[in-house]
Amino acid sequence: MIQAKIAEILDSNQFLQEFEVKGWVRSFRSNRFIAMNDGSTINNLQCVVDFENFNEELLKRVTVGAAIRVLGTLIESEGSQQRVEIEVKELEILGDANPEDVKLTILSPKRHSLEKLREQAHLRVRTNTFGAVMRVRSKLSFAVHSYFQQNNFHYVNTPIITGSDAEGAGEMFKVTAFDIENPPKKEDGSIDYKKDFFGKETNLTVSGQLEAETYALGLGQVYTFGPTFRAENSNTSRHLAEFWMIEPEVAFCDLDGNMDLAEDFIKYVLKYVLENCKDDLAFLEQRLLNEDKSKPQNERSDMNLMEKLHFVLDNNFKRVSYTEAIEILKNSKPNKKKKFNYVIEDWGADLQSEHERFLVEKHFKCPVILFDYPANIKAFYMRLNEDGKTVRAMDILFPGIGEIVGGSQREERLDVLQSKMKELDIDEKELWWYLETRKFGTCVHSGFGLGFERLVQFVTGMGNIRDVIPFPRTPQNAEF
Amino acid sequence: MIQAKIAEILDSNQFLQEFEVKGWVRSFRSNRFIAMNDGSTINNLQCVVDFENFNEELLKRVTVGAAIRVLGTLIESEGSQQRVEIEVKELEILGDANPEDVKLTILSPKRHSLEKLREQAHLRVRTNTFGAVMRVRSKLSFAVHSYFQQNNFHYVNTPIITGSDAEGAGEMFKVTAFDIENPPKKEDGSIDYKKDFFGKETNLTVSGQLEAETYALGLGQVYTFGPTFRAENSNTSRHLAEFWMIEPEVAFCDLDGNMDLAEDFIKYVLKYVLENCKDDLAFLEQRLLNEDKSKPQNERSDMNLMEKLHFVLDNNFKRVSYTEAIEILKNSKPNKKKKFNYVIEDWGADLQSEHERFLVEKHFKCPVILFDYPANIKAFYMRLNEDGKTVRAMDILFPGIGEIVGGSQREERLDVLQSKMKELDIDEKELWWYLETRKFGTCVHSGFGLGFERLVQFVTGMGNIRDVIPFPRTPQNAEF
Repeated sequence: MIQAKIAEILDSNQFLQEFEVKGWVRSFRSNRFIAMNDGSTINNLQCVVDFENFNEELLKRVTVGAAIRVLGTLIESEGSQQRVEIEVKELEILGDANPEDVKLTILSPKRHSLEKLREQAHLRVRTNTFGAVMRVRSKLSFAVHSYFQQNNFHYVNTPIITGSDAEGAGEMFKVTAFDIENPPKKEDGSIDYKKDFFGKETNLTVSGQLEAETYALGLGQVYTFGPTFRAENSNTSRHLAEFWMIEPEVAFCDLDGNMDLAEDFIKYVLKYVLENCKDDLAFLEQRLLNEDKSKPQNERSDMNLMEKLHFVLDNNFKRVSYTEAIEILKNSKPNKKKKFNYVIEDWGADLQSEHERFLVEKHFKCPVILFDYPANIKAFYMRLNEDGKTVRAMDILFPGIGEIVGGSQREERLDVLQSKMKELDIDEKELWWYLETRKFGTCVHSGFGLGFERLVQFVTGMGNIRDVIPFPRTPQNAEF
Repeated sequence: MIQAKIAEILDSNQFLQEFEVKGWVRSFRSNRFIAMNDGSTINNLQCVVDFENFNEELLKRVTVGAAIRVLGTLIESEGSQQRVEIEVKELEILGDANPEDVKLTILSPKRHSLEKLREQAHLRVRTNTFGAVMRVRSKLSFAVHSYFQQNNFHYVNTPIITGSDAEGAGEMFKVTAFDIENPPKKEDGSIDYKKDFFGKETNLTVSGQLEAETYALGLGQVYTFGPTFRAENSNTSRHLAEFWMIEPEVAFCDLDGNMDLAEDFIKYVLKYVLENCKDDLAFLEQRLLNEDKSKPQNERSDMNLMEKLHFVLDNNFKRVSYTEAIEILKNSKPNKKKKFNYVIEDWGADLQSEHERFLVEKHFKCPVILFDYPANIKAFYMRLNEDGKTVRAMDILFPGIGEIVGGSQREERLDVLQSKMKELDIDEKELWWYLETRKFGTCVHSGFGLGFERLVQFVTGMGNIRDVIPFPRTPQNAEF
């Protein structure tokens, strides 16, 4: 007898071998066919029971959601739905699932809306869609680590709780050990943060980049992969208050090298999941096709899921300067016909998702890297070009979603960095350690950030970012 | 000309090949020998300059900490310290390091205390010790992912911000988007958390276990690897307020399976770093030997670093019940002679580090797994044994540090779990979702937690946990 996972059994050719398998009942047809799943694969194992050999009371307990143990023989299946099946010799109920209670949950065998599934995030991974998404997410995260480790990057855990609030990447959550009802006060009535746990005000990080830079300037090439936070009241399908970010940072690397790295990295991880998540991606592609059928023609996707992944994998990313892109957009049909919500008029405009998607999907028909953005719409640490008005920033634009990567060459010149910080009123005292890296063997270096959930959305085709992270945190929602 | 990392060049046999390499100056002897490091390895590359061929002003700028570019030819070295060296043809200063400023930092070439290094955590990775520790940390984290992925575990990101405070694993940090000076109040004067970002009080997670359980009961076997937090005012060499935790969770797995998993996992990751971090571990071992020399004989380590790693790798972990362990301790010499700070008198006592180390280092002389602890010193979710007074908990004990893993089989029986929660006054409403997993196909399942920094401490031999994480967070310290 072999104890096995369903993924192994479905691939097995050991006919007449006895297997023991444990999992959950997905369906039980005709008092004869149990479809069983154990999470190892999207596919169910068909277990065939001869009801004459089993106690009636036992078979009654084979209900949707119940945990069972099956021991039986592997045989070729006569049905067309599966290659193999298990002829059941022993059947044991490990954990019941009362059908009356199951009816009230998303485990019940009918279509549930994604909204409803979100309310039961503790159970939704037991559905086909979320099982598939979460297995793909796991593989994708391993692809991230594998890529960087194979290329001799060092993984670095930058701090989650941070005392510096000068990064300017967005609104921050505050962290405190105080009783907020009654924090200690100073004589002037203001809160005495010296008495807080860390002896100062602290926040949740919005990016590990500045800390990662200090490590790149010692270890050479590093990457982060950890949670980051935004306290922004954005109730959209693209925003989370808590999300995972990947931030490589490379010493002695300029913007061109940064673009090469990002393109190579993205292609590696897509290739990895295409090779390692075939069944899950096939299911997710079919899911999208079914979803599209219920939509009017003009709202359906131009590409199916595999086509979209290969669109990125098989094309060179087109590298276009911001200035060129503005010219293209200004002269584009939708701009002239005022079809864009934001009509592009002048150099300096911040691009919206509609413009980014036009460039990718209509104009270039390939992934696009825009670079050399106007300095005043980008962050303080980006390297100023000789023209004095653009910085060595880059954004990578994808079909369907627009920006997926934002990066830059960093300003390595101490004096230029200092004057930029002065201009933007960023306190040098807050970032003394960041400035010191420019004093002691500074060098050209670059990096980028990629929001992991955006990548999972792209790979799985899920429309709402809340559906690609196990327990999403959004305004008014921190359940579980 | 080949652009290369120092790690590659030091392994190369391409003599007379031209290499270009960029890095930082570690020393410059006799106006001739530059020791250069780029973070790819603990070892420096010796670059030999013929000062007659170079501008004197240029050579003056080759100072400790400066970033340089070297182009030269690989030759066999005549010195005994290195196999190969670079005969320099071109030398370029990329970033200066003013010696007067460097003198004030830990980059200056003299011995600095670990305390001093901590104050300059943005620079310390450029020292031998911290370069080695952080490279080992990176490899170790990849070993963790590799082990679980090879064994078909799914990585799951449990939430960092949590609305549930019932886990009882320790003091929590509060998270808020309020202006703490002036939060909105209800009519009765208390704070109106409904108006906070998440519409309720939220904290930083102390463990992802409960959420991971919900995923194990769908995907079969999962693991977390993410940051966790404790707002405990523990100013010790073993505690951090922010640390990374690994928590596997496996459905249909009992405590014996859990012990097997933990032992197999630990041996895999130790083997991985022994194979992949040879140079760094050799350096760290030598560092400890040097440190020991300055200590009195009775404070020196019994084992050197490699011996300690092999002590764990080459021994079977001895499995001993808590009850047996108490008998051994009660009858032990240090207990009878009252050498323990806490003398063991009765069954039920909580073990201290001194007892754990006695069992491992003196009595069994191998790693030890203690199991079946008294219920009342363990958490509510651990499975109650038939004796009604012990639970299926396990702790793994290591030489030098005591407990490194804590785990258990989980209480899968809804009624037993409910009565335990009632007993401990844990609100069922808070954990409705956790209880539901016991209603719908509950099953035997187990898991454990391993504090990643404790593991890095064990592998690197670093005595203070603040020295194995890039930017440690401890009471009164959230700098950088």
